[in-house]
Formats: sequence, structure tokens, C-alpha cells
Amino acid sequence: MARPSLREKLASSAVDTLHTHGFTGCSIQDITDAAGVPKGSFFNHFENKEDLAIDALRRYLEGTRVDILFEEGVRPIERLKNHFKFLSGRLLENGFERGCMVGLFAAEMSREYPRMREELRAVFAKWCDTVASVLREAQAAGEVDPRHDADEMARFLVNAWEGAMIRLKITRDCGPINDFMGTTFKVLLK
Amino acid sequence: MARPSLREKLASSAVDTLHTHGFTGCSIQDITDAAGVPKGSFFNHFENKEDLAIDALRRYLEGTRVDILFEEGVRPIERLKNHFKFLSGRLLENGFERGCMVGLFAAEMSREYPRMREELRAVFAKWCDTVASVLREAQAAGEVDPRHDADEMARFLVNAWEGAMIRLKITRDCGPINDFMGTTFKVLLK
Repeated sequence: MARPSLREKLASSAVDTLHTHGFTGCSIQDITDAAGVPKGSFFNHFENKEDLAIDALRRYLEGTRVDILFEEGVRPIERLKNHFKFLSGRLLENGFERGCMVGLFAAEMSREYPRMREELRAVFAKWCDTVASVLREAQAAGEVDPRHDADEMARFLVNAWEGAMIRLKITRDCGPINDFMGTTFKVLLK
Repeated sequence: MARPSLREKLASSAVDTLHTHGFTGCSIQDITDAAGVPKGSFFNHFENKEDLAIDALRRYLEGTRVDILFEEGVRPIERLKNHFKFLSGRLLENGFERGCMVGLFAAEMSREYPRMREELRAVFAKWCDTVASVLREAQAAGEVDPRHDADEMARFLVNAWEGAMIRLKITRDCGPINDFMGTTFKVLLK
């Protein structure tokens, strides 16, 4: 196997460092130290810390398995449930301390980092559109009341999920995930 | 009117500075500069930055008007709606950039600040218990299906609200509030 380039080493390690400490909670020095690369090499590969954080967010989202939402032969509501179960599973691997990188960066970076804010706006918009399209399929299949606004409900659900991800940084247990799954699938989409 | 003490000047100004920049996004120097007090005076009044942030969180929560949830002669679901409307109003005063201090500190401080984490745990627990008691009243009054788990639903709603508060740092409009109010009161609690 070829040795990973310095850029690759820095970028892939930064996903963990930024996810654990937050953008404002770690310095470029912390990031290069954790990656085991010289601090001086940082600016050969990234324009600034925001640039690296955007790269880290994209890497973080690569493993999202959006295909689960479109799996053939599975009922729409079941696909939605599988989507959130998959996201929960990823979270458990990472430990409860970290929550979701999307919500973390949204909380701490939106105000002062317009490029990140635009990146997050696009991530949320795409995610909500996908969830809404599955909800519309569920409506067409008679699983969800067709009078509900699928777009509004999708945005509500995605935001509720991000809120649960924040809350479990406090509870450090599956409680917020269970509350989300319970109310969403036993009450809201029943 | 008596001149505010140096401690008071520092503490009340810190609510704004911490809410705007986040805990890790501003230094003690930034906080004392914004308050117009000498940096050296900080440690005469607060043990450390976490100590000040806990004080700021308590001040922030003082204006929450929990009494709205218990207003006599108003139906339970209407009180719940008024509660979230009141929180929205506070937010609009502050501008969309800031979101909710509870969710912000939860996102950025839970991991490394156990005293803040415990403070937030208690704030969330009390808030959820209050919302659950109103939901139980709504169930007793026949406004909400009595088979639903009021505690789970209350935690879900509080987390969903916090998620909406994170999202509006991105959208910078009332969208996430409208989505929350719409789905909560037209679908979930219908």
C-alpha cells in the first residue's frame, strides 16, 4: 500500500480532531500534532482552518449511506427508520461525547464563517429534500396522511434529529435517540 | 441608581459575549474588553471561564417566563404554544445569528466541562418535566391521545426545539421556528 500523502494524513486525522474538540476548541497546532505532521506543512495544503473544516465535513458525510433511503423492496417509512438507525449506529461507534459534526459546526461556526455556513446550508437542504421525497412516497403508499406538508415535516425531522444529537452530549446514553425514534415512528408518522 | 459593581458589569456583559461568540470562540480578554473592565479583575470575581459561563447561563434563563406554561384559564396545548412563541420572540430580539445558549453550550462544552454539563443536564431535565406535566394535563383534558408517553414526547419536543435553534443559525430566518410550530401543533399534538 502506498504511503498516504501528507495532505491525506492531515485531512483524515483532522476529521477526528475537529469532531472531538469542535472548530473553535482546537488550534491548527492541535490538528497537526494529532496528525503527526509538522505545523509548518499546514498552509502548503490548506488555505486556512475553515478550508480544512469544510474538507473534514465532506469526509464525515461520505459515510452517510444515503442509498438506504432508496432501498428497493422496502416500504418508505421503514427506509426512513433504517436511515436514522444507521446514523445512530455511526454515532455509537464514535461515542456519545461527539454528537453530529453537522450540528456542531452549525452551532459554533455559522456566524463567523460564511463559507462553512453556505456548505451547511447546502447539506441540510439536500438532506431535507431527500427525506421529503421519501415522505411523499409514504403518502402515496397510504402510510402517512397525504394532507401533511412533506417538506415541512422533513425539515422538522432533520432539525429534531440534530437536537437529539446535541442532547446526547449531555445524557451520554441512547435516551435522545430512543425519544426521537419513539415519537417519530410511533406517534408522528403513525 | 447605584453604579453596578464591577462583578455585575462583567457578568451581565458576558451573557452577550458568550452567546454571540460561544464559549470556545471568545477569550477572557474578549469578555473583559467587551465589559470594559480590566482583565486583571476577572479572577477577583470568577474562579475561571467555566464559572462565568455557568453564571451567564443562569442569567440567560432568568427571562424564560416559565409561568406561561401554567397560566390559568388557558388550555394546556395553547399554553405550550405560547411557551414556544415566547421563546421565539426572545430569539428574534437577539437576531438569528445567536440561536439558544443552552444548545450552544451543550454542543461545545459538554465534553470538556463537567460542571457545565451537569448544569445543562439539570436545565434540560427540569424543562422536560414541566413540558411533560402540561402534556399530561392536555391528555387529561382530551386534547392529546392519552396512550402517548408524555415524558418521551416532552423530551422529543425540547430536543426538536433545540435542533430548530441550531438550524436557524444557518437559515437566518423564521423557517425552522415555523416548521417546529407547524409540525408540532398541526400534526403531532393534533
